[in-house]
Amino acid sequence: MDSPRHALTVDNVIFGLDDGELKVLTVKYGEGKSSGRWALPGDWLQSQETLEQAASRVLLDRTGVKDIYLEQLHTFSALDRHPGERIITVAFYALVRSDAHVLSEGHDNMEARWVNVRETPGLIYDHSEILDIALARLKHKVRHEPIGFNLLPEKFTLLELQRLYEAILDTKLDKPNFRRKMMKMNLLVSTDEKQSGVSYRAANLYRFDRKVYNELTEQGFVFEV
Amino acid sequence: MDSPRHALTVDNVIFGLDDGELKVLTVKYGEGKSSGRWALPGDWLQSQETLEQAASRVLLDRTGVKDIYLEQLHTFSALDRHPGERIITVAFYALVRSDAHVLSEGHDNMEARWVNVRETPGLIYDHSEILDIALARLKHKVRHEPIGFNLLPEKFTLLELQRLYEAILDTKLDKPNFRRKMMKMNLLVSTDEKQSGVSYRAANLYRFDRKVYNELTEQGFVFEV
Repeated sequence: MDSPRHALTVDNVIFGLDDGELKVLTVKYGEGKSSGRWALPGDWLQSQETLEQAASRVLLDRTGVKDIYLEQLHTFSALDRHPGERIITVAFYALVRSDAHVLSEGHDNMEARWVNVRETPGLIYDHSEILDIALARLKHKVRHEPIGFNLLPEKFTLLELQRLYEAILDTKLDKPNFRRKMMKMNLLVSTDEKQSGVSYRAANLYRFDRKVYNELTEQGFVFEV
Repeated sequence: MDSPRHALTVDNVIFGLDDGELKVLTVKYGEGKSSGRWALPGDWLQSQETLEQAASRVLLDRTGVKDIYLEQLHTFSALDRHPGERIITVAFYALVRSDAHVLSEGHDNMEARWVNVRETPGLIYDHSEILDIALARLKHKVRHEPIGFNLLPEKFTLLELQRLYEAILDTKLDKPNFRRKMMKMNLLVSTDEKQSGVSYRAANLYRFDRKVYNELTEQGFVFEV
């Protein structure tokens, strides 16, 4: 058998939560045939870096986003996924607070922007398909693992937590039902403090029980929606 | 940025259940520097095939095993994973009944053999690490999804099902506990038939409730061990 060589890229699906809205980080191609098109931030894999290193490098260079844990999603190898030569891409994904990251223009004059995940302009190549698969993975994750530790303030209201679930699952959840299920998991601790600076009736603030959070991350659960 | 070309392989972790024992399919290198060493069945990715097609082709060519659904596991890209040139590999995995597949010698004179997953000889390159990661994935799967439909006869005893779980989880399970948890899931239907051809007290035979099986596969669960 031959051992042909292949062109390899990495592409990042960075989900960002922004005040109850789920967004994805996109970059705009400034030059070449795809000029003006939006894409997931990606680049060629170099010879002396791992895929993980490439994913982090690309993200920083293209968008200014750094210090986040990228998880491998899937490797895409359809023969026609790129209109020119054959290119295989390894996709990564992460979920962060979008307001915690200042975006900057990359070295290729690519403009970086957070866009609502359900309102992306047609992305280049198979990037919309990669986004869909990442979104499915994220939806699965939120139903089986605790989520929110790095996404919510240290103390939060039950409504803020519900908004987080609703943004990811793209559905309205029943408030009493959501609260009942959440409390049953013993994941939340009431802080005896109330929201401040609101004109309506201030809601109770909760924090995560770290021990239960870690145990549930390890063990998993089923959150029915 | 350069667009260097990379050597890419696929490697398959095929788990086989054999009378309550969990095995993995390995091949023995017959020529070259690695002659006599055992490995996961793998090969170069060709220019005109997807990774999924390559994984199936390799498996058939090397071991005779065909018509199984291979799931992508992870792409491994450590710079030193191969002692010669840099090679990136995409690993796939599957779980089958080992007695349902007749092994044959591959075109490279590779001998194929099922070996107990906890008694593999030192595998080449990072294949032991790939096996460990596949095993962790399988253990996670068995705790969160129904398993056994393609692995057990249509009608089976609770003890046969327990042996399947024990083989994958590599632990002894408490019989009453296992039965209680299984029955609680409504996954099993009693057939009113008993085991035949046994000299001891014949056990009741069960079958899977297909509807519940599919629902639980979709929804997931937590099987605590």
